[in-house]
Amino acid sequence: MTSPKRILSGMRPTGPLHLGNYHGALANWVEMQHHYDCFFFIADWHALTSDYEKPDSIATFVHEMMIDWLSAGLSPEKSTLFVQSLVPEHAELFLLLSMITPVPWLERNPTYKDQIIQLENKDLSTFGFLGYPVLQAADIIMYKANGVPVGIDQVPHVEITREIARRFNFLYQNVFPEPEAILTPTSKILGLDRRKMSKSYGNAIYLSDTPETISARVATMITDPNRARRTDPGNPDICNVFEFHKLYSPTEMVDQINGDCRRAAVGCVECKKMMAASLIQALAPIRERRAHYEAHPERVKEVIMAGSDRARTVARQTMDEVRSAIKLKLDLA
Amino acid sequence: MTSPKRILSGMRPTGPLHLGNYHGALANWVEMQHHYDCFFFIADWHALTSDYEKPDSIATFVHEMMIDWLSAGLSPEKSTLFVQSLVPEHAELFLLLSMITPVPWLERNPTYKDQIIQLENKDLSTFGFLGYPVLQAADIIMYKANGVPVGIDQVPHVEITREIARRFNFLYQNVFPEPEAILTPTSKILGLDRRKMSKSYGNAIYLSDTPETISARVATMITDPNRARRTDPGNPDICNVFEFHKLYSPTEMVDQINGDCRRAAVGCVECKKMMAASLIQALAPIRERRAHYEAHPERVKEVIMAGSDRARTVARQTMDEVRSAIKLKLDLA
Repeated sequence: MTSPKRILSGMRPTGPLHLGNYHGALANWVEMQHHYDCFFFIADWHALTSDYEKPDSIATFVHEMMIDWLSAGLSPEKSTLFVQSLVPEHAELFLLLSMITPVPWLERNPTYKDQIIQLENKDLSTFGFLGYPVLQAADIIMYKANGVPVGIDQVPHVEITREIARRFNFLYQNVFPEPEAILTPTSKILGLDRRKMSKSYGNAIYLSDTPETISARVATMITDPNRARRTDPGNPDICNVFEFHKLYSPTEMVDQINGDCRRAAVGCVECKKMMAASLIQALAPIRERRAHYEAHPERVKEVIMAGSDRARTVARQTMDEVRSAIKLKLDLA
Repeated sequence: MTSPKRILSGMRPTGPLHLGNYHGALANWVEMQHHYDCFFFIADWHALTSDYEKPDSIATFVHEMMIDWLSAGLSPEKSTLFVQSLVPEHAELFLLLSMITPVPWLERNPTYKDQIIQLENKDLSTFGFLGYPVLQAADIIMYKANGVPVGIDQVPHVEITREIARRFNFLYQNVFPEPEAILTPTSKILGLDRRKMSKSYGNAIYLSDTPETISARVATMITDPNRARRTDPGNPDICNVFEFHKLYSPTEMVDQINGDCRRAAVGCVECKKMMAASLIQALAPIRERRAHYEAHPERVKEVIMAGSDRARTVARQTMDEVRSAIKLKLDLA
């Protein structure tokens, strides 16, 4: 019997998690816990790359993100759940890797180019923003992760991580495995307005939303845009609400809706009410766990501390190997 | 009575110290111990910016540099003598400052431009090399230093440090004083071949040289290049050996040489023997202390550990303030 492969992934604590985050990453992590030795971390230092001018909420978001994670089913017994800044070894490895990473590797990073354009209102041309793939590389190889579950847009970062790990192994000693990107399928559900679900678009349904909020928000969802009147037949194939039904409603209801919509036998208002009920029910276990953790914030803190201690034990061991490999280790015995 | 101002400076451990290093920096540090609260550190991480491909000697050089320092008269009772990599808080502050430092500040750094040209045989276009003024800023402001004794070529770095400190104070809270550059006069003595004394030119006399080596090396020194024959009168004003006499010989001998050389009453061979004797005598206290520390390497290790512990205590306090100021501090109590 071989030990399970190690997986590492992280999220920036920039606000509450929505269904897009859940289906695009978190649900996948919950599943992976059964098959891998998982390390999941809250990347509070990474949050500074874009939010360094307004970092006031980061610490609060860290706490809330851990509640989101625990509510969604991540288990502190099964996985190592930790906070990046509580393992300062990440900063040391970042510094050491920065010495061997050519600037052009970072400048040609497509995500870097994209974000510079997309976030043009923020002053992003900082040294830290240029170097965030180096910090990501440190995050990943610190735990000698074999795999990194990521969305398609993050694949170039894993590629830079592999290059940096390879360069370290070549220059010094073979310390790091080259991690593989494990592609998470993109979530098919869209936001209320049919754009990508995103906090910044204000079109999201959050894991922490109450049943009342969910009902109210689902009621505002745009359905098949070609169905102008109740009496027009609809097309579930292009309806975002139907995507939700497929995820959250029982098969019989999905089949029923699929037929009724095309015959105009069901209206969008009614269809959305049915979907909201399914969604509210599907999220019930998440809400229950959330109620528990919100009532016991000290338990959340314990999880953060215990997980970060566990991560730090691994990180210290790795840094010991790293210092030996670079021969920076002083003989002070 | 106000407490003395705090001074910080450092050296990269790239080899044994020579007389140029001594008169250009170290002798000044020894003097400053009486007037300031001094923090001096061995910048082993900085040594990686240029030597990351061959870091094998850095740890040895760290130990030898501390012996050079102690031999030259730095006192572990008066000053805090430490090693950068033993205070990993420097890496964390480097990371945090990298988030607020615009890339153009680093690209326009004249020393960066110069070194890229001068060291063209090394692959220096790394992210860490671009960012070494950020690491220097972290080194300096970590101890809230008021002054940084530097040579003229390092003044732009202190200026970047001031800019970064100012930006931090502006964005978050007023944590850091802006350090002033304290200019160390450039050493007037040249190398054996009349070029700048430098390890890489092979023209240096080292603090660790034995009397025999000193005599042999002084014998090879180029004197007044216009004095071709013993019978030609010489010009002490352009003679490097005479610069050494002015530093190391008694006033009467300096005056005597000054007259005799111009009248061809003393030859260069004899003059150099006199200077070598003066130099050997002047370095006697340094040699004695060295003999002691070389016989007691455990004492050197103790100094490194105790100084680094002291530095780390200050660094931890500063990082606590920094995390509070950025509001990255988690409430885990």
